[in-house]
Amino acid sequence: MTQTRQILFVRAPEGMPDPGCFDMVTRPMPVMGEGQVLARIIYLSIDPYFRRQMAGAHGYRDGLRPGAVMIGRGIGEVLESRFAGLKPGDFLLGETGWREHAALDGNTLKKLDPAIQPLSLYLGLLGQSGGTAGIGLFDIARLQPGETMLVSAAAGAVGSAAGQIAKILGCRAIGIAGGADKCRHVVADLGFDACLDYKAGDLPAQIAAAAPGGIDVYFDNVGGEVLDAVLPHLNMNARVAMCGQISQYNTGKPIGIHHIGALLDKCATIQGFRVGQRLQERDAALVRLTQWYREGRLKYRETVANGLDSAPAAFISMLKGANLGKQVVRL
Amino acid sequence: MTQTRQILFVRAPEGMPDPGCFDMVTRPMPVMGEGQVLARIIYLSIDPYFRRQMAGAHGYRDGLRPGAVMIGRGIGEVLESRFAGLKPGDFLLGETGWREHAALDGNTLKKLDPAIQPLSLYLGLLGQSGGTAGIGLFDIARLQPGETMLVSAAAGAVGSAAGQIAKILGCRAIGIAGGADKCRHVVADLGFDACLDYKAGDLPAQIAAAAPGGIDVYFDNVGGEVLDAVLPHLNMNARVAMCGQISQYNTGKPIGIHHIGALLDKCATIQGFRVGQRLQERDAALVRLTQWYREGRLKYRETVANGLDSAPAAFISMLKGANLGKQVVRL
Repeated sequence: MTQTRQILFVRAPEGMPDPGCFDMVTRPMPVMGEGQVLARIIYLSIDPYFRRQMAGAHGYRDGLRPGAVMIGRGIGEVLESRFAGLKPGDFLLGETGWREHAALDGNTLKKLDPAIQPLSLYLGLLGQSGGTAGIGLFDIARLQPGETMLVSAAAGAVGSAAGQIAKILGCRAIGIAGGADKCRHVVADLGFDACLDYKAGDLPAQIAAAAPGGIDVYFDNVGGEVLDAVLPHLNMNARVAMCGQISQYNTGKPIGIHHIGALLDKCATIQGFRVGQRLQERDAALVRLTQWYREGRLKYRETVANGLDSAPAAFISMLKGANLGKQVVRL
Repeated sequence: MTQTRQILFVRAPEGMPDPGCFDMVTRPMPVMGEGQVLARIIYLSIDPYFRRQMAGAHGYRDGLRPGAVMIGRGIGEVLESRFAGLKPGDFLLGETGWREHAALDGNTLKKLDPAIQPLSLYLGLLGQSGGTAGIGLFDIARLQPGETMLVSAAAGAVGSAAGQIAKILGCRAIGIAGGADKCRHVVADLGFDACLDYKAGDLPAQIAAAAPGGIDVYFDNVGGEVLDAVLPHLNMNARVAMCGQISQYNTGKPIGIHHIGALLDKCATIQGFRVGQRLQERDAALVRLTQWYREGRLKYRETVANGLDSAPAAFISMLKGANLGKQVVRL
């Protein structure tokens, strides 16, 4: 094999991304340098934060440049190695980008335990998604037993982990998700105490009914109108762990939040966080989650797309909320 | 003297309060019980938080009931005492309300040092206002030397203390105030590094020019459009200490905050706080402020209205931003 395929980011979207923002190209097989491995990529992680990197105005400062290989973490199998810590046949986790093969610096990679199956768990529940949920509840919100925790995008990779963690910690866990099927999954399969369907209307009344004692911790994945609906229901000294604002990523101007004054009334806090800034806390959280998973106390779902060329559609579909659990692409 | 005057709160305002929200009445002199003192009130503290107590919908849960004596802290002179810790001629600080005389529980009162003059300092710089500034910077924002601190309502009682504290801590202090006169006072008299006139327009550009390195701590007294203008200028790990939302107290529906997503981009925090929930931190802050004041390192201004009947107009005037420094009423 002398050629390999990759997907480039070619154009910043206006609003929701479309397939034209990406371009599949064929390139020569990468050449491995000293300290690197050559890997065949087998899973790609598909995440909402990509959208922020694609935007100029509202994104991170280190946004994606048009023409670059599309970013993202992935799992690979080592084909050849010039790095002492990995040998052919080993499995790795790293910043692979959207491509079939990559030459990667060995010291940026994590070697995986093939006893954990499917390996895609290292991208979801036992990877960045679960780690993000753990940071938000353990380190940002400092969730305490007996508190009431509300999480949006509850059927997604991060939200589904957050609710299960809250239950293990001895809390009441309430989800918000879009549609009756997702809500049924969140309660029946994941064990949340309740799940509110924001598409069914009057979310404030649903929150009041599900949490008559108020909300102690809100794990915010979506921002926007849902955040504004939650704020008046915060308890004294409540904490909002702001992890994502997915409802706002594809809008030109973010909507206005009217109930920010609730933070003053309730002596409450909103704290934004990014897992990339908290790698130690992430790794500590994953130790706990991996233990709980081995004890059979954590469940997960994945939405799996097949083939590198399915990645753009899988990403757009996830931004529209079509996934249940972690969205991955299997190559 | 067998009669005394007091001001009742009689009607919740729609928007900005008007004099008809209050009613002056004459009552028999209060009768002192065991453990109480009878005091002649000499200063009333006039504070923005009164407005929140007067509102049903957006206020604290323990709001004012129509027909009650108007709330507020004040300074009194003891006329008679059935409380061991205070004797006639002593000066006290307490929840006096808007009245000329009051019978007060001795164990709710603080005995004042008459060497601190004027005694109204115990309401402003060396009282609740200065204590609030201290809590916001010491305990909520944890302001560090070398950081840039921005404060709104910088010419007011809390804001003027916050900026001076920031300078003593070795920070860059930037104020926001309404009008050129206030801004001149904030820089020339109080020693801030800069002061931005929000009435002069394009506040975002003014912030960018005054703080090209961004804002580490924003002490928010006003909320609304000013908060929304500040958010995009926050630095990584910035803290917003939310102390008041005075721009929103007289509006029916608070305006929308569009840039809340900056908290995610910058891993930043907004934390609301109320001094009444943090009395230990307040007292610790006041030990530091009193020491700095004795060393001549803190300045203050007061806006003094004369006579109990001036209290409603003084309050309304303060809500409109006419005061410089602490607004008090001298009886």
